[in-house]
Amino acid sequence: MASQLDFIGKDYIAGISNNPRAASRVSSVYSEVQASRIDHALPLPSVFKNPFKIIDGPPSSSAGHPEEIEKLFPNLFGQPSALLVLNQSDAVKSDQKLKIGVVLSGGQAPGGHNVICGIFDYLQEYVKGSSLFGFRGGPAGIMKGKYIELTSEFVYPYRNQGGFDMICSGRDKIETPEQFQQAEETVTKMDLDGLVVIGGDDSNTNACLLAEHFRGKNMKTRVIGCPKTIDGDLKSKEVPTSFGFDTACKIYSEMIGNVMIDARSTGKYYHFVRLMGRAASHITLECALQTHPNITIIGEEVRFRVTQASFVAFGLRTGNIQTFMQVFEKKLTLKNVTDNIVDVICKRAENGYNYGVVLVPEGLIDFIPEVQELISELNEVLAEGNVDEEGQWKKNLKEETLKIFEFLPQTIQEQLMLERDPHGNVQVAKIETEKMLIQMVETELDKKKKAGTYKREFMGKSHFFGYEGRCGLPTNFDATYCYALGYGAGSLLQSGKTGLISSVGNLAAPVEEWTVGGTALTSLMDVERRHGKFKPVIKKAMVELEGAPFKKFASQREEWALKNRYISPGPIQFKGPGSDARNHTLMLELGAQA
Amino acid sequence: MASQLDFIGKDYIAGISNNPRAASRVSSVYSEVQASRIDHALPLPSVFKNPFKIIDGPPSSSAGHPEEIEKLFPNLFGQPSALLVLNQSDAVKSDQKLKIGVVLSGGQAPGGHNVICGIFDYLQEYVKGSSLFGFRGGPAGIMKGKYIELTSEFVYPYRNQGGFDMICSGRDKIETPEQFQQAEETVTKMDLDGLVVIGGDDSNTNACLLAEHFRGKNMKTRVIGCPKTIDGDLKSKEVPTSFGFDTACKIYSEMIGNVMIDARSTGKYYHFVRLMGRAASHITLECALQTHPNITIIGEEVRFRVTQASFVAFGLRTGNIQTFMQVFEKKLTLKNVTDNIVDVICKRAENGYNYGVVLVPEGLIDFIPEVQELISELNEVLAEGNVDEEGQWKKNLKEETLKIFEFLPQTIQEQLMLERDPHGNVQVAKIETEKMLIQMVETELDKKKKAGTYKREFMGKSHFFGYEGRCGLPTNFDATYCYALGYGAGSLLQSGKTGLISSVGNLAAPVEEWTVGGTALTSLMDVERRHGKFKPVIKKAMVELEGAPFKKFASQREEWALKNRYISPGPIQFKGPGSDARNHTLMLELGAQA
Repeated sequence: MASQLDFIGKDYIAGISNNPRAASRVSSVYSEVQASRIDHALPLPSVFKNPFKIIDGPPSSSAGHPEEIEKLFPNLFGQPSALLVLNQSDAVKSDQKLKIGVVLSGGQAPGGHNVICGIFDYLQEYVKGSSLFGFRGGPAGIMKGKYIELTSEFVYPYRNQGGFDMICSGRDKIETPEQFQQAEETVTKMDLDGLVVIGGDDSNTNACLLAEHFRGKNMKTRVIGCPKTIDGDLKSKEVPTSFGFDTACKIYSEMIGNVMIDARSTGKYYHFVRLMGRAASHITLECALQTHPNITIIGEEVRFRVTQASFVAFGLRTGNIQTFMQVFEKKLTLKNVTDNIVDVICKRAENGYNYGVVLVPEGLIDFIPEVQELISELNEVLAEGNVDEEGQWKKNLKEETLKIFEFLPQTIQEQLMLERDPHGNVQVAKIETEKMLIQMVETELDKKKKAGTYKREFMGKSHFFGYEGRCGLPTNFDATYCYALGYGAGSLLQSGKTGLISSVGNLAAPVEEWTVGGTALTSLMDVERRHGKFKPVIKKAMVELEGAPFKKFASQREEWALKNRYISPGPIQFKGPGSDARNHTLMLELGAQA
Repeated sequence: MASQLDFIGKDYIAGISNNPRAASRVSSVYSEVQASRIDHALPLPSVFKNPFKIIDGPPSSSAGHPEEIEKLFPNLFGQPSALLVLNQSDAVKSDQKLKIGVVLSGGQAPGGHNVICGIFDYLQEYVKGSSLFGFRGGPAGIMKGKYIELTSEFVYPYRNQGGFDMICSGRDKIETPEQFQQAEETVTKMDLDGLVVIGGDDSNTNACLLAEHFRGKNMKTRVIGCPKTIDGDLKSKEVPTSFGFDTACKIYSEMIGNVMIDARSTGKYYHFVRLMGRAASHITLECALQTHPNITIIGEEVRFRVTQASFVAFGLRTGNIQTFMQVFEKKLTLKNVTDNIVDVICKRAENGYNYGVVLVPEGLIDFIPEVQELISELNEVLAEGNVDEEGQWKKNLKEETLKIFEFLPQTIQEQLMLERDPHGNVQVAKIETEKMLIQMVETELDKKKKAGTYKREFMGKSHFFGYEGRCGLPTNFDATYCYALGYGAGSLLQSGKTGLISSVGNLAAPVEEWTVGGTALTSLMDVERRHGKFKPVIKKAMVELEGAPFKKFASQREEWALKNRYISPGPIQFKGPGSDARNHTLMLELGAQA
């Protein structure tokens, strides 16, 4: 392990340490594994090994309300998708050097650095003499004109590395006319030919608005988006996955697998694991497919339609059709979620298993309408400030709402009353859902114990896996996928495209066969009415209850619940067995896995 | 990734699925990485590639109170250590088949299965026709006579796998005369020639008591111990490390490294990471050496002598010798720990860094005498039950104690008052030290904000890394070390040794050059007075403030505090760069790393 420490002296570090712009990584030391990844050679889709041209598909529409989208994007609406195809004769070529800007927007996701490296290398290879500039700290960097030139030396130490620290990210949005003006001034001053926005659904919507704005003003700056988010909720037919999802899920699954083997070895703990992913439960579902936990809660299932088959599988109840229909009509409530867990625990106890693993999506509470109702009523009551110690204030809650409040464990009640944001609102994000569930399950099992229907000791252990997964070293898949996204973005800009999102497809095939192109951002959009106005949005892709990943999960979870089918994926490998595996969600959605 | 799921059908799984005793792993599915590890070939020390004999060292003494240890172990005291040496002529050989039992005792640690595989393979290779039996569920299995025969087919799927689920573990102790009687009956009935106890300090003490008991009764059953604990606190000159420590620290360091890159990328969070290790802070220290966090709290430093140099480095204060001496005499208190963290945060803010990573050992609270005092006073007050809502009960606390209580954040105060074990005692283990520190730091920073000496926003994020590290796939080092420990245990039993702990040395060298032998368990022992009687104990090895690992840490931590020297070790690799790395603590203690 000595080499970890020796590494700081190595040539390339010494090489860039004279470069004041490379400050962040120069001050860091590389582990052996980090260092070995820098020179990891990335395969490219074969279209980049030969001369290619870009062909256009048919005109596009939008995901909904095309007439409104057309009004919002008069210059871009209807744009065709673009596809790179091999072509010897009239291949893309330009003698004009390009000036390109790139920005990271929103939360960290493994692979972001490789998108930038992909753009950089594309320009080096295809448009020699071009310049790439990185806006610092996200979209605010565009508005404030904070950027650095990305040179070969500067980019080098970030190759295949996790994190966004090369240029850092930010959550600001370019929204107001003044902000659009600022952005316009910056790119004009910099004389930018193109801008690549690496971000999630919001950031790509913003990218499209920028593209429209620049095009509307006949500016030369084109804008291309790239799909980023560990949550996996930015995807469509043409954008099969967002980068970072693969790595994050594998990191979480490594930990879940370890905890599973511990549960089985120890034989006395129920581990409740909360996983990142507030809006959609893709991460939780993927981790379930990778590890086979005893219980998995999928927020979309809790909120949306609960089909009879999947509900029965979820609740492991049969025969009581009346109860079922009642619950079915009401949708799943917090009490139901708890009861379902308690049912499985009791069934497992009968089979001799007094341990287990439960996966819970971070956003669970957001998926339960009754809790939403409780929180909004609490906000009102608290705003009025009439909270007395005797609890008379509770009379201001609706009867149903009060029932839910009383059902919550005391510590959660207190959390709801105490933790509020500067606007006085209850902070749902601070509620540790996994601990709440443990306490509710404890309470229900205590009742059963008194009734003599449960005779074991229940011990819950809570975990939250979140930040650990956002900046890990990207898997071989994410590293390669991101590099191709970057190359793709470069090629789209070179051929004058704007308002597209870089799209790499056919991902189940070997890398050589991956397709590269761009999808019209407007084609992913719908509108939402906010403050009486239509706002364009790229709708978050939720877990489809009729989709292949959920169906596979639903078909197996009853077996996972009662028998133990744990899989421990182990640590991500960069060489040898498992190192080129792609995640289940992707492979199932592509039909490449049964 | 399809092969993960296909694997269930593979021959070896099918092969053992007819074996009812292999129930636990038959029901599991292997990931690609898990599967690839099963057939990973383990190198052996060269002594096992040639005929060897065992030579004895000089007579041993004890770690303390030799006269008392001699009284407690009249038959074993003074035993020499044993060393395997190459020998052609009078090599160890026996035609007598052996019956050996093995037991896992205490908490899980990666590599336990490989010790068992090592014993098994040794018997297969050197004492053909021998039998190995695994006691189920720890020492209770010995007392109750619960065991299974370990066959080649049964053992196979556990090779190089994490967890203890092959035979499971337990925390029972063989203590009373009746329990010794039960153990005696079991091994007599089974006609055991030997017993291998795989465990920590307590379990190895127990192993030695068993060895003494059996020897005292002229029984043929010999007992050999093996050093297991992720905490790393069972070690001595002859037993350089306990297995599991290497893997657990690397798993935690992977996560810490990821969180570091996230901290640097996001630029706005302080991550407080609590790490397993109640008694000693070896894990925290090793993770610090692997990752270079901004602040690391080492329990031993908090409790024990605080040398001027290291204190100054720790507190980053100079010049104020009066304060220093005051604190020095009083030892570090919770307030000091908090102030030290706050100091670093303020210094970093001045340097433009509004983020960081803080490592905290799980046992921190146990290291702070004043908190111990508070808890014992609280226990008394609570036992009397006079806790009134107005807080009059606080008058029963000593003035100093009350101050500490009032210094604690409200939620921790509540935790202390509410969470009690069945005996009515405050449950220190349930206190989330990292959250407590975050809240105390918040409070202090708020004061500084009001005073105008701190102007940033502090946002703390808490993590606990514990269960994730106990059952991971063992690193190449742990896998190989454990296998050698098992081979060693087999060879010691074959040559009639008892009361020794399997000892594999020269660990900084290539595996071929590792030494193999046994160390007299009595030589590791001292006595403690409990209930007026001397009890033998293997003293836990604490972090030595004069040892090489701590000194290296202490010499660098000021730089880590203010500059960013983060290292992200990345996921454990089984092939390629970094895959054969050994941990820093071991290499530094062996003098093999500067």
